[in-house]
Amino acid sequence: MSTTAVDYARENHPRFLNELKDLLRIPSISTLPEHAGDCRKAAQKLADELRRIGMENVRLIETSGHPLVYADWLHAVGKPTVLTYGHYDVQPADPLEEWHTPPFEPTERNGNLYARGAVDDKGQMYMHVKALESLLKTNGALPLNVRVLLEGEEEVGGEGIAAYVASKPSDLNADFALVSDTELFAPGLPTLCVGLRGMIYTELEVRGAKTDLHSGIYGGAAPNPFVALAQIIARLKDESGRILIPGFYDDIIPPSAEELAAWKSLPFDEEEYRRTEVGSKELVGEPGLSVLERTWARPTLDVHGMPGGFIGAGAKTVIPARAIAKISMRLVPAMTPAKAFAQYKEYVEEITPSGVEVQVRLIHQGDPCLIPVDNPYIHAATRALHEVWGKDTVFIRGGGSIPIVGDFAKHLGLPSVMMGFGLPDDNLHAPNEKFHLKNFELGIRSIIRFLEEAGR
Amino acid sequence: MSTTAVDYARENHPRFLNELKDLLRIPSISTLPEHAGDCRKAAQKLADELRRIGMENVRLIETSGHPLVYADWLHAVGKPTVLTYGHYDVQPADPLEEWHTPPFEPTERNGNLYARGAVDDKGQMYMHVKALESLLKTNGALPLNVRVLLEGEEEVGGEGIAAYVASKPSDLNADFALVSDTELFAPGLPTLCVGLRGMIYTELEVRGAKTDLHSGIYGGAAPNPFVALAQIIARLKDESGRILIPGFYDDIIPPSAEELAAWKSLPFDEEEYRRTEVGSKELVGEPGLSVLERTWARPTLDVHGMPGGFIGAGAKTVIPARAIAKISMRLVPAMTPAKAFAQYKEYVEEITPSGVEVQVRLIHQGDPCLIPVDNPYIHAATRALHEVWGKDTVFIRGGGSIPIVGDFAKHLGLPSVMMGFGLPDDNLHAPNEKFHLKNFELGIRSIIRFLEEAGR
Repeated sequence: MSTTAVDYARENHPRFLNELKDLLRIPSISTLPEHAGDCRKAAQKLADELRRIGMENVRLIETSGHPLVYADWLHAVGKPTVLTYGHYDVQPADPLEEWHTPPFEPTERNGNLYARGAVDDKGQMYMHVKALESLLKTNGALPLNVRVLLEGEEEVGGEGIAAYVASKPSDLNADFALVSDTELFAPGLPTLCVGLRGMIYTELEVRGAKTDLHSGIYGGAAPNPFVALAQIIARLKDESGRILIPGFYDDIIPPSAEELAAWKSLPFDEEEYRRTEVGSKELVGEPGLSVLERTWARPTLDVHGMPGGFIGAGAKTVIPARAIAKISMRLVPAMTPAKAFAQYKEYVEEITPSGVEVQVRLIHQGDPCLIPVDNPYIHAATRALHEVWGKDTVFIRGGGSIPIVGDFAKHLGLPSVMMGFGLPDDNLHAPNEKFHLKNFELGIRSIIRFLEEAGR
Repeated sequence: MSTTAVDYARENHPRFLNELKDLLRIPSISTLPEHAGDCRKAAQKLADELRRIGMENVRLIETSGHPLVYADWLHAVGKPTVLTYGHYDVQPADPLEEWHTPPFEPTERNGNLYARGAVDDKGQMYMHVKALESLLKTNGALPLNVRVLLEGEEEVGGEGIAAYVASKPSDLNADFALVSDTELFAPGLPTLCVGLRGMIYTELEVRGAKTDLHSGIYGGAAPNPFVALAQIIARLKDESGRILIPGFYDDIIPPSAEELAAWKSLPFDEEEYRRTEVGSKELVGEPGLSVLERTWARPTLDVHGMPGGFIGAGAKTVIPARAIAKISMRLVPAMTPAKAFAQYKEYVEEITPSGVEVQVRLIHQGDPCLIPVDNPYIHAATRALHEVWGKDTVFIRGGGSIPIVGDFAKHLGLPSVMMGFGLPDDNLHAPNEKFHLKNFELGIRSIIRFLEEAGR
């Protein structure tokens, strides 16, 4: 028997990797109905494995879509309870021709494991399972109480888990959550994500004439919904990137001086980022703020598409009766989706040009979140990470949203520890997704040590 | 034998109508490849009929698409030569379920003939053929030299005829053209169209990042092509409808005081037009100018569609790498497409926001035209129309373009007499297209008398 869980993990690593490969061979693409059976197969395989390693009350929880997987181990009297979260579903793999090796035949190459789902999120989720196995098999017990919750719809909006969490079942009573669906800021640099932006996703529908009209006959008299939308959008955001909605910036809590100083010391070069990641002529955004501040701690407004009218090749001279702009705004603490939407709607209605009518619709929303770094679980995480990686943890934020983190906070009152081991170039949602093999190994070790520290 | 061609037309009208119905039964939809045989069948039928009534040198002229039909009668020594133009192709008939009677089963109802192509343009084009028959069968000769040119691609851009006209064949030597593809300004009001707007149809393609990016991760740093396009469009046209391109209005020759006074006396109510034709909350356009002036004698700028990004239902948080705006401008005398496009391109490049690159493409262009009303053929037309309709002719302009009219002027030096007998509610390009039966009859009579007057 191994003397420590970390030793057990090291000794059993080749098997762990083979098991992960087996899991990656299941094409559990949640968005494609023909893969519903594969999603269930992945869920069942994980449930079987959780049972095998000694977790209890293992079961599938049915949802409106693919099932959740639940398991627990609750015998650490007087210790806190962690809710570990991950997802077993993956993105579609197309365009297939751009993969160097097939997406569902996991392949090791250059120190990486290539497969759809390698890092997002099967590989990261499986680190939790293997950490739990290492602890249980070494000690016959866990250092704290553990509930495992896995979902199969993260890539399609996560409705099933959202409904389940919102129902506040006693099965989810816990003290904190562990989410491994993020990345290291740079290779070898232990990272905790402690803030996420929220969002409102909206549609502006502008209607002019009662029917599509010919621009030769009516041009100069009939309102043009696209022109009206352009005029509205140009008044929503100026060319410096500043959002012009009155009051929009009022509730923002700026990052602390300490946080800003920490971001400045991160290994990040804006010119390199422009050239290699974005590839645009110039970066845009509010003057005087760094890229990290703009993408992590400032709201933004983007237009995603403008359906309506004629979008074929060539020329059609239509003045469309209506056109839509899909517009989202990212929100930062302490903005709220409700207030931001109300401000936006009121302003849009006020600036809508004459001749057209506008409808402002909210499609989707999410709260921003910011996790206090003086939380004891964050402290436990940084101790564990320092031990495994030999470096101080950097605290970063994310510009996007992980809705489940907001749901855990809102419905269950749980702070999340977002401890992920992906890399910025792991090709999430793209061909040749990979997981750096060393990060899979150190990730398991980090989680073992984190659970031990959190239960100390 | 009838004493006059007008008598002949009156006596033979029931047969003329039946022949038109036979022509309308042929679904000569030029845009649908499966109807190519029907287009040729319509062309052949017209060639046969032109031969039967006594026209000479009748033949089909092959093009890259559907054939042209040519015929002539050139024995009026010392008389002018008219080139009569029409098109035998029609628009598709869908949505079929909105037709009260089938589109290719011509049906008389409430004094109208309902069928696809009834007025656009088979019915109007056939008036020419029946006027020529009436003249030839009554007099054994025509009062002037006549060349007939019919096309089968008017509804799909008219490339075949444009190429043929641009080659300046001697077969098209003439003094003026007769085009019946327009409408009466109001029922019973004889109308000549003497001006058309030109146009440039363009695409603005804006590129930001090298690839589509996630708005959560990159929002606030990566340029958004739709936002850039909105900012550009908002600077192309202000909310009063005035185009902001420097110098754009410089070359405009305003309508004469006489023309403006004539337009004011037309039976036209702007509020009625807003309510029944446009159906928008308000009309838009340059302040202080009437609707007719805005749609006939002022340039406009319209956006027809904005392809790119995400246009499906729901939410996708993409910052697209590129987006396009399809933008056209209508031009009026003496603007030219070349100068207008150069002004537009230079200005767009100047106002394009930082971070993105813009490409300005010209897709399509057409010259504006204005026909002097002191032209002898216009005088002949007004005399004929007064005799048949009992009223003075009104001179109107059209806001759209009839490219062939510009081609006749540019390549052959021909002024066109645009004498049409459609009505504003004839449902061109829409379900339940119709031709008012009385207008078919009076149209033939008007054309007989016009040709007699033009050859006097």
